[in-house]
Amino acid sequence: MTDFIPTPTVPAPDIVRCAYMEIVVTDLARSRAFYVDVLGLHVTEEDDSTIYLRAFEEFIHHNLVLRKGPVAAVAAFAYRVKSPAEVDAAEAYYKELGCRTERRKDGFVKGIGDAVRVEDPLGFPYEFFYETTHVERLTQRYDIYNAGELVRLDHFNQVTTDVPKGRKYLEDLGFRVSEDIKDSDGVSYAVWMHRKQTVHDTALTGGDGPRMHHIAFATHEKHNIIQICDKMGALRISDRIERGPGRHGVSNAFYLYILDPDDHRVEIYTQDYYTGDPDNPVVTWDVHDNQRRDWWGNPVVPSWYTEASLVLDLDGNPQPVIKRTDASEMAVTVGADGFSYTREPGEERGFKMGNQL
Amino acid sequence: MTDFIPTPTVPAPDIVRCAYMEIVVTDLARSRAFYVDVLGLHVTEEDDSTIYLRAFEEFIHHNLVLRKGPVAAVAAFAYRVKSPAEVDAAEAYYKELGCRTERRKDGFVKGIGDAVRVEDPLGFPYEFFYETTHVERLTQRYDIYNAGELVRLDHFNQVTTDVPKGRKYLEDLGFRVSEDIKDSDGVSYAVWMHRKQTVHDTALTGGDGPRMHHIAFATHEKHNIIQICDKMGALRISDRIERGPGRHGVSNAFYLYILDPDDHRVEIYTQDYYTGDPDNPVVTWDVHDNQRRDWWGNPVVPSWYTEASLVLDLDGNPQPVIKRTDASEMAVTVGADGFSYTREPGEERGFKMGNQL
Amino acid sequence: MTDFIPTPTVPAPDIVRCAYMEIVVTDLARSRAFYVDVLGLHVTEEDDSTIYLRAFEEFIHHNLVLRKGPVAAVAAFAYRVKSPAEVDAAEAYYKELGCRTERRKDGFVKGIGDAVRVEDPLGFPYEFFYETTHVERLTQRYDIYNAGELVRLDHFNQVTTDVPKGRKYLEDLGFRVSEDIKDSDGVSYAVWMHRKQTVHDTALTGGDGPRMHHIAFATHEKHNIIQICDKMGALRISDRIERGPGRHGVSNAFYLYILDPDDHRVEIYTQDYYTGDPDNPVVTWDVHDNQRRDWWGNPVVPSWYTEASLVLDLDGNPQPVIKRTDASEMAVTVGADGFSYTREPGEERGFKMGNQL
Amino acid sequence: MTDFIPTPTVPAPDIVRCAYMEIVVTDLARSRAFYVDVLGLHVTEEDDSTIYLRAFEEFIHHNLVLRKGPVAAVAAFAYRVKSPAEVDAAEAYYKELGCRTERRKDGFVKGIGDAVRVEDPLGFPYEFFYETTHVERLTQRYDIYNAGELVRLDHFNQVTTDVPKGRKYLEDLGFRVSEDIKDSDGVSYAVWMHRKQTVHDTALTGGDGPRMHHIAFATHEKHNIIQICDKMGALRISDRIERGPGRHGVSNAFYLYILDPDDHRVEIYTQDYYTGDPDNPVVTWDVHDNQRRDWWGNPVVPSWYTEASLVLDLDGNPQPVIKRTDASEMAVTVGADGFSYTREPGEERGFKMGNQL
Ligand SMILES: [Ca+2]
Ligand SMILES: [Fe+2]
Ligand SMILES: [Fe+2]
Ligand SMILES: [Fe+2]
Ligand SMILES: [Fe+2]
Repeated sequence: MTDFIPTPTVPAPDIVRCAYMEIVVTDLARSRAFYVDVLGLHVTEEDDSTIYLRAFEEFIHHNLVLRKGPVAAVAAFAYRVKSPAEVDAAEAYYKELGCRTERRKDGFVKGIGDAVRVEDPLGFPYEFFYETTHVERLTQRYDIYNAGELVRLDHFNQVTTDVPKGRKYLEDLGFRVSEDIKDSDGVSYAVWMHRKQTVHDTALTGGDGPRMHHIAFATHEKHNIIQICDKMGALRISDRIERGPGRHGVSNAFYLYILDPDDHRVEIYTQDYYTGDPDNPVVTWDVHDNQRRDWWGNPVVPSWYTEASLVLDLDGNPQPVIKRTDASEMAVTVGADGFSYTREPGEERGFKMGNQL
Repeated sequence: MTDFIPTPTVPAPDIVRCAYMEIVVTDLARSRAFYVDVLGLHVTEEDDSTIYLRAFEEFIHHNLVLRKGPVAAVAAFAYRVKSPAEVDAAEAYYKELGCRTERRKDGFVKGIGDAVRVEDPLGFPYEFFYETTHVERLTQRYDIYNAGELVRLDHFNQVTTDVPKGRKYLEDLGFRVSEDIKDSDGVSYAVWMHRKQTVHDTALTGGDGPRMHHIAFATHEKHNIIQICDKMGALRISDRIERGPGRHGVSNAFYLYILDPDDHRVEIYTQDYYTGDPDNPVVTWDVHDNQRRDWWGNPVVPSWYTEASLVLDLDGNPQPVIKRTDASEMAVTVGADGFSYTREPGEERGFKMGNQL
Repeated sequence: MTDFIPTPTVPAPDIVRCAYMEIVVTDLARSRAFYVDVLGLHVTEEDDSTIYLRAFEEFIHHNLVLRKGPVAAVAAFAYRVKSPAEVDAAEAYYKELGCRTERRKDGFVKGIGDAVRVEDPLGFPYEFFYETTHVERLTQRYDIYNAGELVRLDHFNQVTTDVPKGRKYLEDLGFRVSEDIKDSDGVSYAVWMHRKQTVHDTALTGGDGPRMHHIAFATHEKHNIIQICDKMGALRISDRIERGPGRHGVSNAFYLYILDPDDHRVEIYTQDYYTGDPDNPVVTWDVHDNQRRDWWGNPVVPSWYTEASLVLDLDGNPQPVIKRTDASEMAVTVGADGFSYTREPGEERGFKMGNQL
Repeated sequence: MTDFIPTPTVPAPDIVRCAYMEIVVTDLARSRAFYVDVLGLHVTEEDDSTIYLRAFEEFIHHNLVLRKGPVAAVAAFAYRVKSPAEVDAAEAYYKELGCRTERRKDGFVKGIGDAVRVEDPLGFPYEFFYETTHVERLTQRYDIYNAGELVRLDHFNQVTTDVPKGRKYLEDLGFRVSEDIKDSDGVSYAVWMHRKQTVHDTALTGGDGPRMHHIAFATHEKHNIIQICDKMGALRISDRIERGPGRHGVSNAFYLYILDPDDHRVEIYTQDYYTGDPDNPVVTWDVHDNQRRDWWGNPVVPSWYTEASLVLDLDGNPQPVIKRTDASEMAVTVGADGFSYTREPGEERGFKMGNQL
């Protein structure tokens, strides 16, 4: 079912972590109101077309670039590598894969030096860089700490048609799997992969792709996430809360999904677990386990399965979206045709969402 | 629309607070597992047919009585009054109302002395008592404090067909309104009423009644409620989480609704506000305000509107359930026929639940 | 030892709760920076000489008045009464006590109507009022909720030489005791007294008096208090944190004491318990119990025992401070001469602070 | 001032993280009561002489070994390495350093396979291992999650006479410095060093050594730490709370120090920051900065500076304790002879502890 992405002969670049995302927004002022006024991200610098934002405990130049453009989309998923030489390694690696690459010694955005961007085998615009301007790490600036403060970029989430294919490609690139969702027929629905010592730097979600599912920021504690909900209620934008808050089954994190003015999805996330040991146990969830996506069994809204953001090629044009042909997680789990369980078969009760509709 | 309940000429009893509920459960061991093992309520005493439970900071004998019986139902909503003489006042008050009353000098249950039970004008079994055995208040017993500790009984919630009728009756009884839900046609959907200085000791929810909608216990902080969800997930009883957690619009409390083995509904609740001033402002919500029941606009599951527990008459037989004839909150707000708003009319977006289905 | 304050023959005014304090500050701008910029209290109105502040969930005009003046002191401890007629009752009550009183139909400060101020038998300036301007209750304004938000005025604390004398006077005035600190010789060191259903509206602390020990505001949760500490650290005013944070033995509340620019002491406080039942159990602590003031046994700094604010008479002159002649809590518990215990006598270890010095 | 520890020519072992500590306790039952009943660590296995304990989210066999013995001391600081071959690397590395080493293919304790123990150049018993039995990771066992749950081993802290010497040795071993405390004369008082992506796996504290200063476990949130204090109060062992809770300046973590029955010090710790980037900024604190050890300026109790646990050589005999000759942090900062500041020089106020004594 999977067309194979070969393993290059040259070494993969040594990736440290997901570092920033560049997104195109259609109304810069509205996006600024959302990311700065509502979410409280910190402006490193900004001009008429672009805003550079970072989380509270970040010391690199930014974690999010908002760039004004005609079509809402993602321009780059950027990873930091371990040294300047690893940018060369990334370029060579993707060249051997036959991917289009573009190298810019002065970087693609402010605050980032020598970088390479590629159209990766799954169709995503990946960037690799080491050089970056250090900025004030606000860690102990509790005088400006807000009640829903976002303290770190945590991860990306990408929608792709063929999860096993993407997983093999990312494993070759040095990512390690922490958790995944499968069924007994061997269909793979999603996989979580990391470089830093958390559950993930990126995850692959099966669906029509390539698309960006969400970008996630971490808070210190759960009450910070609740405050974000409360604030969105006070601002009468509660309809921009898409899903949650809740406790993930996968990753064990406390989560919330909200939508920015262009429907780019943002997750707020806290308290997953340490994954740094080489033999960190992989957790596999059955797609029919009703607690895999929400530990409390609360239903996943359909839009969360179906909606996602376009991604751009290196010319800035949206990548065409390809239909997933494998089974859809929504189809196999939600509603009359789907099947899910709260307890193991044999116990009396079952699918929670069915009870509600 | 309302048949009038006359105001007695004798003074209403001086009620201090909601104090305990007596419920009939069909399987005492299963109910014990739920209330003691899952929720961590503290056993004051128990025998083969009855368990007396209290919250962490309670000093009266109990807040909940579980009594084994053939049909799941509520036997009493018990209020504490200010002095022994107020039990006499209660008896006289209901006698003048023409209600059936029963007085027992030694109480109806262990730990409670002289008490009167009545079949009130709305069909509910109300009890009034002052005398009670003082037991250890566990307030600083942090050595047995569990992560989801329930610290106080907070309130009752009753389903009744005619909310304005019930409201007038409870106002005569000395309750004061803190919040309510109405529509522009003057239909009243729910009302919150208090004696102690919180948002409510009891609330009236419009629906087929008389039935018991829920009993609510308070925790110290929001994370305690999240822990209860997490624990129910770990025990694989997440399908017994009916609604939430969330932030109420009405009352501003953080909440969770769960179901006991007999489908008696329990709310876990924290952080409403002080209502003790005589001119405490009443908050009225429009039934179409999508944030009235959940400040984050998350949908209310239909079962929450339709399901409730039977209540017993003084012979222990279930009261017949009368159909509500006023508009139903579910009907006017949920789905294709309903209408709700997140922001005021004129703004672009609307009903959140509609987006999800 | 106590000179008796007689019980008036007229009824005591029906007090609802502690409502606001008027304090004189020597540098209005510095005080504004502390109460508004650091603590986040909300300005109801202000002019060149006076700032009116309220907590997040307050609906009366203010909880704190800062008035510019030459000598830092407290001008009024103001209580709200249940109706306009209770202001008359208060005036009559204190007149019978032989106290100086002053009645102003238009109030002493903005936002308050008909009020009486008195020089009470202990030397404190007490005010009683009912009429007040209702202002926006910010309860669900989570868009302006800060990470250390103060949500309610909780209580006053007064230093007086003779605690039993003051206790009897306040009991006559309708206050009920929730907790106290004594020793086996019958010396009374402190008492906590309430009208609303919390541990106290005011407390009497034995010492040189009359002086104001502190005013206390409540937060929702413990992390809000920790944030205030963190913020004061970030602002490099950690030397204005006098004591805590900690868990009180008395009241069980989580607490923090900080000092304003004039050394007026402010407590931040959360999670004491319900006291509304008529037979609410009184908790008596032994003065030698090392956990009475801090449940974790952390030492009370000497300044907390010795320092307090002057109070004014009705002419605006500071009341003379009288020496306490009863035993001092600090003397009997701290250091080489004092004695305290963590466990009951017979167990091996003892006084924690002694271990540290 | 420093006698040089040479850099070996063979590569340092690739260390993953601090993994467990083996401590000798004199009364196994009392220690079990402390670590299991009070702190809630989970017993992997135990027998008459030894108890193996782990934190909630751990999947290796244990994080703490309590072994019954005649003298309270630390038998091993154990680090996990990246592969079996790295144990060989460790052995070779220390052999070249001229250190005594002992290799055991079946491990020194249950649940650990091939391991080498060494008497390191600073006199500490270090262990390196890869093989370990995987045990149930309790991450989502919220049914047994207690209110003060310890979820991870976070770090060790070692007392050594010569901090720069130790720092150079640990840097050679692959540790990276995150923070340190110095003075303007170049004296080094303490240093924090990490392998995993947190502030430290171990820290060096200047003092008489070699001794073990503390072992630290992490909780999820701050309220979990407060609960541990509250529980120790309820158990009337508040005199075993040595210092805190507080916010560290160094590391920014919320902390608490408590003492086990043998006076082994345990820190409870939460919410430091990500350090995984190769250029993670190093934070240097001035020893006179009054907020370096406690961000709120609360005083460090003298015992915290002076007391620590003995460490054992490979024969099980205590290492002799050598006096520190460099300046003592306590001497230069506490009391009449010391000097500390809250704000930069030129501002009006200074040393907080001085105000208190
Ligand atoms: Ca919390
Ligand atoms: Fe995510
Ligand atoms: Fe409720
Ligand atoms: Fe206080
Ligand atoms: Fe530490």
